Amino acid sequence: MRGLFFDVFGTCVDWRAGVIGEGERLGLDGVDWPGLADAWRGAYQPQLETVRSGRRPWTLLDTLHREALDALLGDFGLAALGDSERERLTLAWHRLDPWPDVVAGLERLKRRFVVAPCSNGHIALVLDMAKRAAPPWDVILGAEIARAYKPEPDAYLRSAAAAGLAPAEVLMVAAHAGDLVAAAGCGMRTAFVPRPDEHGPGGGAEAPPAGVDLVARDFLELARVLGA
Amino acid sequence: MRGLFFDVFGTCVDWRAGVIGEGERLGLDGVDWPGLADAWRGAYQPQLETVRSGRRPWTLLDTLHREALDALLGDFGLAALGDSERERLTLAWHRLDPWPDVVAGLERLKRRFVVAPCSNGHIALVLDMAKRAAPPWDVILGAEIARAYKPEPDAYLRSAAAAGLAPAEVLMVAAHAGDLVAAAGCGMRTAFVPRPDEHGPGGGAEAPPAGVDLVARDFLELARVLGA
Repeated sequence: MRGLFFDVFGTCVDWRAGVIGEGERLGLDGVDWPGLADAWRGAYQPQLETVRSGRRPWTLLDTLHREALDALLGDFGLAALGDSERERLTLAWHRLDPWPDVVAGLERLKRRFVVAPCSNGHIALVLDMAKRAAPPWDVILGAEIARAYKPEPDAYLRSAAAAGLAPAEVLMVAAHAGDLVAAAGCGMRTAFVPRPDEHGPGGGAEAPPAGVDLVARDFLELARVLGA
Repeated sequence: MRGLFFDVFGTCVDWRAGVIGEGERLGLDGVDWPGLADAWRGAYQPQLETVRSGRRPWTLLDTLHREALDALLGDFGLAALGDSERERLTLAWHRLDPWPDVVAGLERLKRRFVVAPCSNGHIALVLDMAKRAAPPWDVILGAEIARAYKPEPDAYLRSAAAAGLAPAEVLMVAAHAGDLVAAAGCGMRTAFVPRPDEHGPGGGAEAPPAGVDLVARDFLELARVLGA
């Protein structure tokens, strides 16, 4: 194995707390920010599907996030929210905090492997996140490089090819079974890291998929198991 | 300014010594490796031009390097060189050593700016080089991201766009006037760093282009001047 590819939203960073926090900092009274964060994330797969299905050309995640937000705000009493606040909320996805083990774990893993995000987030989004919170990526791969959204095989295969890696040389790391099943279908190895707080404290982690190669409690245990 | 883009071959790494060294390690007697390195680099712009001109579709630099090598070997008495040696020489371009100031300079610059290669080398090439010799890039941009070879404007403009940067927020750093003139034409700021040994000891540096924004002796001086 030469490369470790990481899912980002949920696996590396706490999208829910980040979106809620950005909302709360707008200083508006009585808004159900947790509900809005969950509904926004709920619109994620349907929005990606508009591109995956071929119904529209390649579109970056900022645009998909903004469209979903615009469609949701009315349900949360925010139909009158201005453009600059909408933009600020959309960019909350560039400013998410990593889980506590992520930076230290990646620093160790990076000594031995190529570490790269394989996210549906575009390059600028993942880059902004990395400059703010320091995950030390070697290269930013993923949907924009591939012009395909996970779980389409091209999202994994073109990311590996761009890094000069065969799929069998890559370990895909994610907190989501569907991501790992798709990566395994492309010939990659897979590692499951549970993130029980992804959907809020006590929300619980997904179950690892059948056939996963490795399960680690967090990125530090992953580093230990991989000898890094 | 938010981002620093770097030319790689010649500006960050010593391609000539790297290619000569790889040749010498093949253990063949009486080969003019310096001559071959110079001739190979001399074929670089004509090879890029086969893509820039539209005469052929997008082609990665490994392929262009290999074609040029195959065409040159006969002139150096190496027509019988085997495929695995040709491949090893081609991959020498993935294993070039940085100039002595590069890693320390980039480590400092990275604290304050996005640091990214904007090279005609593809992602896997620049990644291999970074994993071996440690330039701490935040993201790998350049020709493959843009599907355009420098000095085409798209090579600069699409790299900036992918990083979420306006051209005016980018400082392009290179040892080559033509690269900087093209970047300035795209609205970027420019910094010239002379590399007098690029074409061998005593070969001499290019002159900085007219209108360059900044000249620094090396990446450490660049860091100092930029307050990083």
